[in-house]
Order: sequence, then C-alpha cells, then structure tokens
Amino acid sequence: MAKEAFRETTKASSLPKTEFIPKSKRSVLQTMAPILFNTIGTDHGDYIEQEEVHVKNPHLDSMEEDILYHFDLGTKTHNLPEMFGDIKFVCVGGSGNRMKSFAQFIHRELGLPGDMDDIRDICAGTDRYSMYKAGPVLSVSHGMGVPSMSIMLHELIKLLHHARCRDVILFRIGTSGGVGLAPGTVVVTKQAMDSFLQPQFEQVVLGKVIVRSTDLDQGLAEELLSCAAEIPDLPTVIGNTMCTHDFYEGQGRLDGALCSFSTEEKLEYLHRAYDAGVRNIEMESTVFAAMCHACGLKAAVVCVTLLNRFEGDQINSPHRVMLDYQQRPQLLVSHLIKKRLGLIQ
Amino acid sequence: MAKEAFRETTKASSLPKTEFIPKSKRSVLQTMAPILFNTIGTDHGDYIEQEEVHVKNPHLDSMEEDILYHFDLGTKTHNLPEMFGDIKFVCVGGSGNRMKSFAQFIHRELGLPGDMDDIRDICAGTDRYSMYKAGPVLSVSHGMGVPSMSIMLHELIKLLHHARCRDVILFRIGTSGGVGLAPGTVVVTKQAMDSFLQPQFEQVVLGKVIVRSTDLDQGLAEELLSCAAEIPDLPTVIGNTMCTHDFYEGQGRLDGALCSFSTEEKLEYLHRAYDAGVRNIEMESTVFAAMCHACGLKAAVVCVTLLNRFEGDQINSPHRVMLDYQQRPQLLVSHLIKKRLGLIQ
Repeated sequence: MAKEAFRETTKASSLPKTEFIPKSKRSVLQTMAPILFNTIGTDHGDYIEQEEVHVKNPHLDSMEEDILYHFDLGTKTHNLPEMFGDIKFVCVGGSGNRMKSFAQFIHRELGLPGDMDDIRDICAGTDRYSMYKAGPVLSVSHGMGVPSMSIMLHELIKLLHHARCRDVILFRIGTSGGVGLAPGTVVVTKQAMDSFLQPQFEQVVLGKVIVRSTDLDQGLAEELLSCAAEIPDLPTVIGNTMCTHDFYEGQGRLDGALCSFSTEEKLEYLHRAYDAGVRNIEMESTVFAAMCHACGLKAAVVCVTLLNRFEGDQINSPHRVMLDYQQRPQLLVSHLIKKRLGLIQ
Repeated sequence: MAKEAFRETTKASSLPKTEFIPKSKRSVLQTMAPILFNTIGTDHGDYIEQEEVHVKNPHLDSMEEDILYHFDLGTKTHNLPEMFGDIKFVCVGGSGNRMKSFAQFIHRELGLPGDMDDIRDICAGTDRYSMYKAGPVLSVSHGMGVPSMSIMLHELIKLLHHARCRDVILFRIGTSGGVGLAPGTVVVTKQAMDSFLQPQFEQVVLGKVIVRSTDLDQGLAEELLSCAAEIPDLPTVIGNTMCTHDFYEGQGRLDGALCSFSTEEKLEYLHRAYDAGVRNIEMESTVFAAMCHACGLKAAVVCVTLLNRFEGDQINSPHRVMLDYQQRPQLLVSHLIKKRLGLIQ
C-alpha cells in the first residue's frame, strides 16, 4: 500500500494543491506539503529496497531535458545511467580537495583496478562543486552552509534518479565544532537540530515557511557506531548535531567581525545545546537530513570535532593533527562500505 | 560626535548587554543588538572617509592572535598590513575561477606592472575560498548562499581591520535569475530583500532572531548606473534584489528534486516579487548588505541575469553567451574603479 501511494504522488496528473499554514500555527506535520506526507513516519524499507531513487516533483516527467547546471551535467549531453548507474554509496563533504582525497582513499580500500591518481573531477566544467567516482562510491563536495548543500542535493538526487540508481545510501562526512567532547571525536548524528534546538528544517517556498523532519536512519547510525568499535583509536559517540547558518555569531563565537554578546551568554547557549543532547555544531546537517528523508533515501551524518567549543572558538590545532582528524569520518564510513560490500567481516 | 560614539562601542570595557525581543514583537530597530544601533540611519560619510575598517566586536582587542581559518591566514603568521594595507576595492563573487579571471582582467585594465598570469591564490592553503590581489583591488570568492558568504565576510572584514585598510568599497559581482528582464541585463541593487520581500536580514544569534537592515549605499548605486551609460551594449537597470536560501524550491523553480507547487503558483510569486520592485533573484545579497552596513562599509551589489524567470527555470544559454554575460558586472565595476582612480574621465 505504501508503495502504491508513494508512486501515485510522483505522477504529473496527481499534482497536489499546496496548502500553507501560518507560521504561528504550524507543526511539522501540518505544514509539510501534501506531496511529502507519505515519507514521514513510515518504514522506508518496504519500498526502498531494490527501488530506484525517486524525486518528489511531478513536473520533472514532462521535461525534455534536465540540465544539472551546478554539476555541468545534463540528460541530453551525458549518459547518466551509464556514468552513474552502479552507484550504491554517495559521500558528501564541504571541501573539494577533501572529497578528492576520499575518492582516492576508498579506491585503494576497495582494491579497485586502475591508478587512484587517475580519478578525475566529473564536474571539471564548473568550480561550483567537485565530483569523483570510485567504483560504487560517489564522492561529492557541497561547499559550506545549508543553501550550498541544498543546491547540490537537488541536483544529486535528480542525477541518481536519472541514472536509475537503486538502494543508494548517503553519508555526509565533515568537520564540526564539538560540544563537551575532546577534539578529534567523531560524532554520528542521532538527530539534526536547528539553531533553536528543534529537530526540524525550515524551507521558504513561495514566500511561506514549510517545516520538514530531519530524521536520519537510526539503524545506519547504530551500524556506524558498531563499525567504530572495530577500529582502533577512533573515539566515536552518537549524539545530536546542531546546524547553524553562520559560523561566528550563529555558533556563539566571540571572534567574528560582529559580536554583541558576552562569554557568559555564549557558554549559557552552548550548555543549553549540550543539555538538548547536542554534541557537535556544523552548517549542513538539517537540510541534508530533511531532503534525504523527503526522498526516502537512507542517510547518515558523520562529523569529526576540530575543537571543544566549551574551551574556545579558534581552530588552531597543528596542520598534521587537523589532517588526522579529518580522515576519521572517512575511515569510519569506508569501514562500513567495505563490510556492506562483503570485503571484510 | 558620531565618530566618538562609534569608537566607544568597540572598546572591550563597554561591552553592551544584549537585549533580545520575541520574534512576534520585533522590528528592525527593536531587535538590533545595541552595539549595532549607531550604524543605522546615519550618514556614514562623516566618519568613514579616511577611516580604517572597524569591526563591531569588543572581544577582538583582547585576542593575542586571530586565525582567519577559512582563508588560511592569521595575524601571527602573516603580515596583514603589508600584504593588504593598500586595498581600496574588494570585489567578491561566488566562483573562484571567475574571481581569478576578474583579478587578471582588472590587473590589465589598471595597467599594473607584472604578468597577470602570475597572480596567485593568496588562500592556496585551503580550498574554502580563493583570493587574488591586483594593486588596490582584492578579488575574493564566497561560494554559494548566505552562510558561505557570511563566513567569508566575517574573515574579510577582520582582515581589512587587521591590515588597517582605509576607505574600502565592497562590490558583489555575481549572477542571478532575472524577473521580467531580458537575459544579460545587469541589475544594480537598490535594496536587498529576503524571500518574504522584506528589506531585512535575519540572523540567529544564541538561539534568538536578530534583524538587520540591508540598506546599500545609494550614491554608489547611482554612480554605477552612470558608469553603465558610458559603456556600449551594457543593458543595466537599478532594482531590488531578492535573496533566497535555496535555488530550486526557494526561488519557485519547477525543476528541483522536490516541488510541491504548480506553474501558476510559481508565476504568482514571481509577479508579487516584481510588483515589490524585484528585478533579480540570487542567494547572497542580504547578508552582504547587512554585514557591510553594520560595519559602516560602502557596498554595492551588481549581478547579471542569466535568464528571465517569467519564461523558464533552466539555465541553458550556450557557454559562449554565458561567458559574455558573466563578464558584464566585471566590466561595469572595473569602469567605476578606473574612474575613481583617475585613470579615465
């Protein structure tokens, strides 16, 4: 039944009437556009297994061509099923260089044929994002902040759809500020929260606010935690992740160009976040969780903490230490991928 | 008097108590942090001329070192006054490649000594942003979206402050979707507006919303318009610019991975924007205007339109045409810079 209902909403003929509810009266369920209702609270497993990636846009069916502008790819200029049809894991992260390193790393880890130095940027025609492919793994950069992530995700999800990919899992592997954790700790996100410590993502559509669930796949998070236990020297916790729209004032930093609060006010905010289960702060998790959830894609957020925000604001660890930290989420996700592919027990 | 009052608020000893007002009761003035009050509605000219760039953060004075993390620069590792002290114009844009091209272009236009191909990325140690210097002009990329712009601006304004720059003018030169304009038209922003068509920028600070003015320097906008009249084949208008946090749903596009509205609803929204004076839509102008305004920096937003949103959503002009369009804001700002430097009449 869920399967049928889900499919029906993707037909152009069933374009639903959008209903908006004033911000003051909304709750997550009330203000979700009807087209998204059926992805909340259902067990995705029953229709995702062996299912293609679905977009939630009835208009796409009627488009002759789809140009994925920020990837410099398109349905008429590229054979997307041939290029991407075998993708099973998509790993995204802020920095293009880091995502290139990850592609080379996973290439080696999976024992893929060919020279890892030959991996080329699939989006070389633009510098908006970088994209690398290593066997069944796609490694894509998303820049910094929710809007940059959101543009990338719209085009990535359409790409996976056009390429007729099946059973794809998405991971965000990134960096973050820790809350009450030693620097270098990996946080697997239980729940992505906004700056008000609410487990939701607000998107403005046609001048009205709609609110989306930021639920992530709990089974996948637990699986990552189990993997972490099998890797030496990889301190890992599961916790909530706060997603902000600014790195300085937005995260209570005292060292931006603008700051109008005291050290005490900053610490009070961070303690409030800690009490709500927040263990790290970054800038993309809510929209990542919300869009994956809305499209029925299994997803996890795995970020290393570069500092403990209770102790400071500036990121000043030596370069060597930072490099080590940044590799930790890669190591963890690579371990899970290898297990899923049966390369290790 | 304004000068004295302004300076006083930057002393650590005068850290003001932050006052927040519930969102429902706020207005622009009510919810501005007290530290920012004195930049609203005053004539900046009286203290900006021959003045250094001021940050609005009393904590910075007490920091021994300031690491501009996303630029890979710092006050202890780099001689910022020597590197940047002569900067008079800062041009920012989304793409690193485009900002490199602009640096080379302005190098040639200003007749600077040395080979323009030797211009190096000052932020080569990181791929978060790119930065190029050509004489008194700094060219910096900011990625896509408000958060990415905001991180860059915090560090840029601190950089200009540490470098003791004086009389700096900032330009955002970018691309946008046009509203009722032929593709290729340059829009000089009169007022930056949010997705609700309000002339303001909302920033969440310590879990509370503060609202900032997005006023830009009207004299500078008029000056740009006069310059445009002197350049052949550079269709230019002055109009309001809407800044959104998403490229697809957020701008009423029908071609994202998610879309829950009809063509008619999309057009109704765009017409509403047009009636509010909006002539183009992009993703960074509000925070750019707000932060420059808060720090008393003269700023302008100059974006070319790549398409007319009344006629479509996809960006599908030929590469050659797109390149021509993207150079137009550069041409206009370069013309103004040359006039200001007395290189042309």
